[in-house]
Amino acid sequence: MAVALLHHLLDGNQTLHFLSKSSACRRPFTLRPIRVTMSHNQSYWTSINGEIEAHLKQTIPLRPPLEVFEPMRHFVLSAPETTAPALCVAACELVGGHRDQSIATASALHLMYTASFVHEQLPLTDRPRPKSRPMTHHTYNPNIELLIPDAMVPFGFELLAKADDPTQNNSDRILRVIIEIARAMGSQGMVEGQYHELESSSQWDNEEVSNIAWIEHVCKKKDGGLHACAAMCGAILGGGGEEEIEKLRRFGLYVGMIRGMSSGIGKKEKGLVRVVEELRNLALKELDEFEGGKFEAISSFVNA
Amino acid sequence: MAVALLHHLLDGNQTLHFLSKSSACRRPFTLRPIRVTMSHNQSYWTSINGEIEAHLKQTIPLRPPLEVFEPMRHFVLSAPETTAPALCVAACELVGGHRDQSIATASALHLMYTASFVHEQLPLTDRPRPKSRPMTHHTYNPNIELLIPDAMVPFGFELLAKADDPTQNNSDRILRVIIEIARAMGSQGMVEGQYHELESSSQWDNEEVSNIAWIEHVCKKKDGGLHACAAMCGAILGGGGEEEIEKLRRFGLYVGMIRGMSSGIGKKEKGLVRVVEELRNLALKELDEFEGGKFEAISSFVNA
Repeated sequence: MAVALLHHLLDGNQTLHFLSKSSACRRPFTLRPIRVTMSHNQSYWTSINGEIEAHLKQTIPLRPPLEVFEPMRHFVLSAPETTAPALCVAACELVGGHRDQSIATASALHLMYTASFVHEQLPLTDRPRPKSRPMTHHTYNPNIELLIPDAMVPFGFELLAKADDPTQNNSDRILRVIIEIARAMGSQGMVEGQYHELESSSQWDNEEVSNIAWIEHVCKKKDGGLHACAAMCGAILGGGGEEEIEKLRRFGLYVGMIRGMSSGIGKKEKGLVRVVEELRNLALKELDEFEGGKFEAISSFVNA
Repeated sequence: MAVALLHHLLDGNQTLHFLSKSSACRRPFTLRPIRVTMSHNQSYWTSINGEIEAHLKQTIPLRPPLEVFEPMRHFVLSAPETTAPALCVAACELVGGHRDQSIATASALHLMYTASFVHEQLPLTDRPRPKSRPMTHHTYNPNIELLIPDAMVPFGFELLAKADDPTQNNSDRILRVIIEIARAMGSQGMVEGQYHELESSSQWDNEEVSNIAWIEHVCKKKDGGLHACAAMCGAILGGGGEEEIEKLRRFGLYVGMIRGMSSGIGKKEKGLVRVVEELRNLALKELDEFEGGKFEAISSFVNA
């Protein structure tokens, strides 16, 4: 799971140069070549993902009731990768925060994303399977696959609330993060995206234009919303200013949409190449005022 | 739903006298007759439940996406009653708090209980139906019944976090309540109870003794845990001391178990009459040091 997470984002030892447009920017946009070298960033992502995985293993030990915790641990450690938790930590560090301030939130994001994924795969009576969702192997029976995610989501919120540290006087930040994650996972985020994915999947093969609009909407609500929330929460926890928080939220939104379009529901849709390229430019614009080694690392997210 | 909630707890205009034992109590236990008159308490519960319902209607308006909010509102307003939200408000007032401090939490408890109930009723492929669960009418298709509760739980946590009020400096209380509710709804509370209800239901007709032990365990984890959490959270939000919080937690646990045994999975089990009577005595002991009109009202909870 998490150990391998993100490695495929970095495509070899090459150096990439992104040049962004300035026309849509309110202030003059500096054209800046971004050097993304694998050797540097790989160790950065490996270290972040290692810490998230260690935190998850520590917080979900094999304790009684084993019938509940064993599948929870299995789901968490075998879920498909998402880059949102690592982005949360990277955003925290980009604004000058310490990694420890965001690891619990990154773990909670992984828990909730996993819960959402397991419910997506649940075999329901009379349920049509969207073509965008691959068939998956079911290790547990449907009751377990329904119940355990219902335990994982509250557990994620417990992790968030327990990150409150009186010595840091960070209650306000923690409560704000809880609200942001609740919105991203709920009725105007992930669940709305899942609803549209289910209800509209029958139109998948009909019209290319509406397909693209539909894919964009689903990616915005699902991967986009999750990554926007992750980056925003990392910036909040790291003590970023409101402008930095908003820039990282938009960066996360674009990056998440790129992820969804490149490796998720849009991966077979050739008409999205131009949209993805535009999203890359928009994402990089948001990083214009950040600097240093962490800037290089987080920039590599646009390279899905 | 909530308007009618609790009315059946009060059985006419009679006056009830509960006399509790002192043997199991650490300190001398005062034998105290409790006068529970319907006219007094009915208006109290009606007013609490009216405010919870008004708060729920206000927080779940029919807004876009309607496909998500319309069923959410339907589930919330048509779910079977639970007395836990009202107990939360009553506990808050019993320790001297104001109703406004607990209404959002009571609403969140109702949302999460409802989400849990809807998932319990979900028609899954190859899912055995526990005999303890009645057949229900399904207004929506399984996809909606799976998805919408996944939106309701985060929404409940959002309501909790938004109850933070800088003018009251109550962040610590809010964060503590979030942790308590997460635990009550999760892997060591509601979900563990649901797991045991599902896995053990095949033994339902076999042995009376194990049936009773099984019912007690499920009631402790489900209704017991929910009511314990509700009463505890009300006391926390109302500014109760640690001893009051703990007494009300135990009171809620016993009251919830009585509810589960009397009207839930244990309602056909005649062997539970003695257990319920003992739980009533234990519950009333916990209220020994509380006084006033609110004490009379909350005492009526033992009369399931």
